[in-house]
Amino acid sequence: MNIIRPIQLFEDTVTILDQTRLPREEVWLELVDYRQMIEAIKMLRVRGAPLLGLAAVATVILAAIKYISDDDFVKKMDAVCWEIDASRPTAVNLFKATSQARKILHGSINSREAMEGFRKLYTSLYEYEETACQRIGINGAGLFPQSKKLNLMTICNTGSLATVGIGTALGVIRTLHQDHEVQVFVTETRPLLQGSRLTMWELQKSGIPATLITDNMAGWVMKTNTIDAVLTGADRITANGDSANKIGTLNLAILAKYYNIPFYMVAPVTTIDSSLKSGSEILIEERDPGEVSSIGNQVIAPEGIEVFNPAFDITPASLIEGIITDKGVFKPPYQLDKFVLWG
Amino acid sequence: MNIIRPIQLFEDTVTILDQTRLPREEVWLELVDYRQMIEAIKMLRVRGAPLLGLAAVATVILAAIKYISDDDFVKKMDAVCWEIDASRPTAVNLFKATSQARKILHGSINSREAMEGFRKLYTSLYEYEETACQRIGINGAGLFPQSKKLNLMTICNTGSLATVGIGTALGVIRTLHQDHEVQVFVTETRPLLQGSRLTMWELQKSGIPATLITDNMAGWVMKTNTIDAVLTGADRITANGDSANKIGTLNLAILAKYYNIPFYMVAPVTTIDSSLKSGSEILIEERDPGEVSSIGNQVIAPEGIEVFNPAFDITPASLIEGIITDKGVFKPPYQLDKFVLWG
Repeated sequence: MNIIRPIQLFEDTVTILDQTRLPREEVWLELVDYRQMIEAIKMLRVRGAPLLGLAAVATVILAAIKYISDDDFVKKMDAVCWEIDASRPTAVNLFKATSQARKILHGSINSREAMEGFRKLYTSLYEYEETACQRIGINGAGLFPQSKKLNLMTICNTGSLATVGIGTALGVIRTLHQDHEVQVFVTETRPLLQGSRLTMWELQKSGIPATLITDNMAGWVMKTNTIDAVLTGADRITANGDSANKIGTLNLAILAKYYNIPFYMVAPVTTIDSSLKSGSEILIEERDPGEVSSIGNQVIAPEGIEVFNPAFDITPASLIEGIITDKGVFKPPYQLDKFVLWG
Repeated sequence: MNIIRPIQLFEDTVTILDQTRLPREEVWLELVDYRQMIEAIKMLRVRGAPLLGLAAVATVILAAIKYISDDDFVKKMDAVCWEIDASRPTAVNLFKATSQARKILHGSINSREAMEGFRKLYTSLYEYEETACQRIGINGAGLFPQSKKLNLMTICNTGSLATVGIGTALGVIRTLHQDHEVQVFVTETRPLLQGSRLTMWELQKSGIPATLITDNMAGWVMKTNTIDAVLTGADRITANGDSANKIGTLNLAILAKYYNIPFYMVAPVTTIDSSLKSGSEILIEERDPGEVSSIGNQVIAPEGIEVFNPAFDITPASLIEGIITDKGVFKPPYQLDKFVLWG
């Protein structure tokens, strides 16, 4: 399949595709300092839960290159891990990656051994994510009858740009596209427009028929078209199945329930954070009001107004028909601390 | 109350506030040719169901000024009425206004008498709309308990900019604000951003506390705040209560139902089109794909993609707690051909 590699690790540098400049420009940035990587994470130049895990390890590696000969290597690297954790407070993949990096850091006899460990972690995580997407695609596609024309809806970007593999929700769609006639409705995903900028770009590149809509058209599209399923990614899934994902996901789940359309969360099992019992324990990142009151350099609201800008919302388990993972499809009631698989 | 007059008729000209340039610039246009008015209607320089009725009559008057001495005055004016009808296919107020103008046209002995009739129609419609908004405000405010802090949600613009009066949904909010502590959540209303551009501007001017959100945040705001009611305008209400309004209204109605929040349609009774039995008979205007794939001059999606851009959606009567009008508040089951009032 025609997919893109949005992060690439080299000897002393990391190359990333600057996703904030898509779809107009395909700009690749060569980063040499770990702080550039943290800036790229904060500014969403790299984004998407699985890709963020890799970006975190790449950040650790760039920092380790910088500090490898310093006496206080461990102390400095610990601080870097905290900096990474603080860059995006909702994405569990960041914390999982830094947690593994910390184990390597404190379990190594010196900075060279730690560095070797970090690079192995990167490679194994990369391979894991790539394979996970493939398995997710197969598991998700298995939910749909053969040779049926499928109308699907998705939000945000969950493709190669978010995962390094074929994608999560988009991975299922790509897999379905191999032997189904597929039509995808993509919500633009305000404020940052990952749907219109990134998903439409990926789907166009892959030749998968797609139609762009604004977020507030979703109900009307469900009413006027036969939608077979809504497929979205997830940034964090708790033990009871409540799931944090891009703001707007909750809207789609409620609308899908009203129209009796199955709503699926799609994510690798690494997105499950079984230390959290339910969604009420998830911290929701609030971002700059300017993301809502302007679009790019264009101001679209009066100055000095109040804005609410949560980056995520939490979809309750009761609205989720199934959670499609690399380890299988979970069905309610969700008891994800036990990883009980369905089907 | 601090309200604005977005259309003003003079001897030979019509002055309008160009709503496409708000909130950054307050540009007043002086129009002398009826075709400029039609362009202004099409481009949404004037918009909002009640204001469109007035704009239609103003268009007729400018055309009558142009053709008053022509032999084929009636034929030319008939053609103008068709042009007006074709400019925005969903707004019933346009058709009602041209229908009245046609009656005057064909019932007058000459062009001077017709002109006099058009001007009287304009004045009486203006007064009707202004009074209707005031009554709507009082009727709507009566639904809420005294001295309670109210969290309200609205979409698009239904204020002075849309109505020449205090507004419909915004008229209720303005009236409530006189003796309640009010907090309004305003959805930005993509693609044309009437919520962020116009409603936030009006509410700021009137000192009514308001918070701007993107359309896809509505569910999360309902989940995390106590919302007392959703109030929206309506462009066309059918006999059974099904209502066409700005795209995104249906989303809000479904979300409100899920969270047990009362959802009210707010409009003068002139918006009721009892010749239509249900929403399935309403024609939905589809607008230029460019409104979705770009914002202002900024392209936000790849070139050559498919876009779906319906300007309105239809909210089924079953989701509507009440229809607040100048003649009272209708409650389900709606039988609006009989105008049975509630309360």
